Amino acid sequence: MSYTELKRAAYEANMELDRRKLVVYNFGNVSEIDRAKGVIAIKPSGVPYAELTPDDMVIVDLDNTVVEGKLKPSSDTRTHTYLYRHFASIGGVTHTHSTFATAWAQTQRPIPCFGTTHADFVYGDIPCTALITDAQIARDYEEETGVQITDCFAGRSPDDAPMVIVAGHGPFTWGKDAAKAVYNAVILEEVAHMAYLTQTLRPDIRSLKQTIIDKHFLRKHGKNAYYGQAQ
Amino acid sequence: MSYTELKRAAYEANMELDRRKLVVYNFGNVSEIDRAKGVIAIKPSGVPYAELTPDDMVIVDLDNTVVEGKLKPSSDTRTHTYLYRHFASIGGVTHTHSTFATAWAQTQRPIPCFGTTHADFVYGDIPCTALITDAQIARDYEEETGVQITDCFAGRSPDDAPMVIVAGHGPFTWGKDAAKAVYNAVILEEVAHMAYLTQTLRPDIRSLKQTIIDKHFLRKHGKNAYYGQAQ
Amino acid sequence: MSYTELKRAAYEANMELDRRKLVVYNFGNVSEIDRAKGVIAIKPSGVPYAELTPDDMVIVDLDNTVVEGKLKPSSDTRTHTYLYRHFASIGGVTHTHSTFATAWAQTQRPIPCFGTTHADFVYGDIPCTALITDAQIARDYEEETGVQITDCFAGRSPDDAPMVIVAGHGPFTWGKDAAKAVYNAVILEEVAHMAYLTQTLRPDIRSLKQTIIDKHFLRKHGKNAYYGQAQ
Amino acid sequence: MSYTELKRAAYEANMELDRRKLVVYNFGNVSEIDRAKGVIAIKPSGVPYAELTPDDMVIVDLDNTVVEGKLKPSSDTRTHTYLYRHFASIGGVTHTHSTFATAWAQTQRPIPCFGTTHADFVYGDIPCTALITDAQIARDYEEETGVQITDCFAGRSPDDAPMVIVAGHGPFTWGKDAAKAVYNAVILEEVAHMAYLTQTLRPDIRSLKQTIIDKHFLRKHGKNAYYGQAQ
Repeated sequence: MSYTELKRAAYEANMELDRRKLVVYNFGNVSEIDRAKGVIAIKPSGVPYAELTPDDMVIVDLDNTVVEGKLKPSSDTRTHTYLYRHFASIGGVTHTHSTFATAWAQTQRPIPCFGTTHADFVYGDIPCTALITDAQIARDYEEETGVQITDCFAGRSPDDAPMVIVAGHGPFTWGKDAAKAVYNAVILEEVAHMAYLTQTLRPDIRSLKQTIIDKHFLRKHGKNAYYGQAQ
Repeated sequence: MSYTELKRAAYEANMELDRRKLVVYNFGNVSEIDRAKGVIAIKPSGVPYAELTPDDMVIVDLDNTVVEGKLKPSSDTRTHTYLYRHFASIGGVTHTHSTFATAWAQTQRPIPCFGTTHADFVYGDIPCTALITDAQIARDYEEETGVQITDCFAGRSPDDAPMVIVAGHGPFTWGKDAAKAVYNAVILEEVAHMAYLTQTLRPDIRSLKQTIIDKHFLRKHGKNAYYGQAQ
Repeated sequence: MSYTELKRAAYEANMELDRRKLVVYNFGNVSEIDRAKGVIAIKPSGVPYAELTPDDMVIVDLDNTVVEGKLKPSSDTRTHTYLYRHFASIGGVTHTHSTFATAWAQTQRPIPCFGTTHADFVYGDIPCTALITDAQIARDYEEETGVQITDCFAGRSPDDAPMVIVAGHGPFTWGKDAAKAVYNAVILEEVAHMAYLTQTLRPDIRSLKQTIIDKHFLRKHGKNAYYGQAQ
Repeated sequence: MSYTELKRAAYEANMELDRRKLVVYNFGNVSEIDRAKGVIAIKPSGVPYAELTPDDMVIVDLDNTVVEGKLKPSSDTRTHTYLYRHFASIGGVTHTHSTFATAWAQTQRPIPCFGTTHADFVYGDIPCTALITDAQIARDYEEETGVQITDCFAGRSPDDAPMVIVAGHGPFTWGKDAAKAVYNAVILEEVAHMAYLTQTLRPDIRSLKQTIIDKHFLRKHGKNAYYGQAQ
């Protein structure tokens, strides 16, 4: 894939974030990786969506060096590259401050699996990281956001939960490419909305039993999946 | 009715689901039955609304055999056919994951009749099924979803409540045809929204008294109805 | 004013109800009165907004006799005429099932005056009627809805609160003409939304003190008003 | 800057308020100041947005005398001029009754800093004024609204929190010009929405720890900022 194609994919995914109303103003950013070349294309920092062009995307390598581009890359770039270095299976990353997912992040608690809409996409709860420590803040803040996330996935595959909420901050999602990462950001916001309503309507509700979670997640994922046209 | 007409009716109803914002991406599905021919037209599995055409609708008989169509029918097809086999009066079925109705389903509780908006359409509460059992999950999951629903209507006519919420899952609605089933899905979402607000605003509120429920439901349904132009 | 003009005014106000998203499908109705002729123009029963024309409006006198029109008038007509007969100052009436106002009606409690947005339009709380009695249901249901409202305004001018919520049912609003009645329906829905949020965020909150309510309502209403261009 | 340019800037910012859905009908007003000339351009009182033109903006000096314009200035003008006289660094002021910010104002409590979305724009909580006293109401009400605000900022810079909620009333925001004041009104509404959800989801949640607030606010503001293209 050429840089032009990679920038086009990242650009389209960033614009989709805006169309899906997951961001206000210039909030949020999406990247896509070319694993063969070891570079990502990511949104520049602080540019409004209405003014973005594919050529504004910045090509950055996994050591956070700008390889091509006139603009500064997103201030969250080091979180993206950290995730690509540690989650080998992912091809795209999205960060938003979408309203319901961020509200859950602000409660500093994971989103329990209350229903099959959730279980169709995430196997178990949507994890919430620990709050960033003062030592982490004093180091490289954006890279440490990545550490918060990988710490939270110790013993859990990023394919089983293509999303996380960072405590006191907001969501990150991923997927096989940038478009799928944005798709998962939309799903997360909808699941977070439903979970908000469920929890406030019935505060004593608990997660679904495991047998239903197994059935729904495995109906769509893995070798026994039977949903959709593609199997 | 020809297959072409049946597919057109199912297609239009599926698109209306999208226009009414009851679904995200390819969630949700609507079917319509031709009782004389013993077949239904239903949305294919996993196809986005923007790409759907009338010809994509799949014709399936009540034993779940595809009669006509190039695509796999919705993974929920066996729930639809089960409902058509057991509810003789219905001509269309809709399944969505609409936000407020799904949140109520996730609380695993029926929606009480708090007001006349509800009573105009449903006689009594909107029933919530029991949670699916492990034995049911081990059998035919989608058909057992139908069993959950009919179990929940033991002693109650599907005409008195053209809708149900499946515990931990989401809503199904029905009507004389696919268009009316979608209409009822819109009504359910609005009633679920109002009931959410009512319940969270005043947690000790109880259902309306029976005399008001009788007046409103019977003003619009049955032999003494006097609402609208058609009586 | 000719019947044609009266029907046009009622038609425009009904369509505005739809544009302001206060109704789903054919819910809701607006009327306007010609006091000199002693007739009102009102929406026909059960016709979708997309199909309405000015000529569909029905002219009805204050004894509920249709004077002109091919269609049946709204099933709520007798509530409208009852209000016109008892509230001499009003020229238009609106009934909706708008979401937040209806949720408050379903709690069967008045909406307290929590802020100046409310106090700019309503002097004191937004009243909630008593629940309709079984005796009233057994009489003329729609006319008795009017009785519920006037009972609730005993000792209070309909100009001080151009709106009411009918317990377990929904809102009615009024004004000098149909357009102003719809305006007040929009204001009610916004005030009901804010009051919902306020109450759920801080359940122990009480109404504003009277001195603020006096200041805001009287700044916009009555002989010492100084808001807007018209004084 | 000529009066024409100043009126154009105020006009565009007022229209943006409407486009961003922060107001219903003619609610809300924005002004911009020309410090050299000692005048502001502000929206006229009670004119709907759809009818506004740049030329309708009213030029008023800091003693509240109309310098140019055919219409009465906003009834909130004296609050605006009071803020310009006391907050030397601000160039634009916005007042709205946006739904979530107003709901917080109605609770008469500040909005705690629950997350980094908030900390990116406001250093600490979003302050809530004391309730207006009866003595203040008896004086110049609109000017006293300004006093409520400056009392609330005793010992705090208006640059650290470019926004406030007036108890029982609603929000005011400011910035280097009218456009930035509207930008901050949009941010406030989004932050107030997230804080509402967070608080109702987890009532025992407290503000973020100071180290995170420091990191996020100072990453975007002051001499060590590194966010965006402009540093």
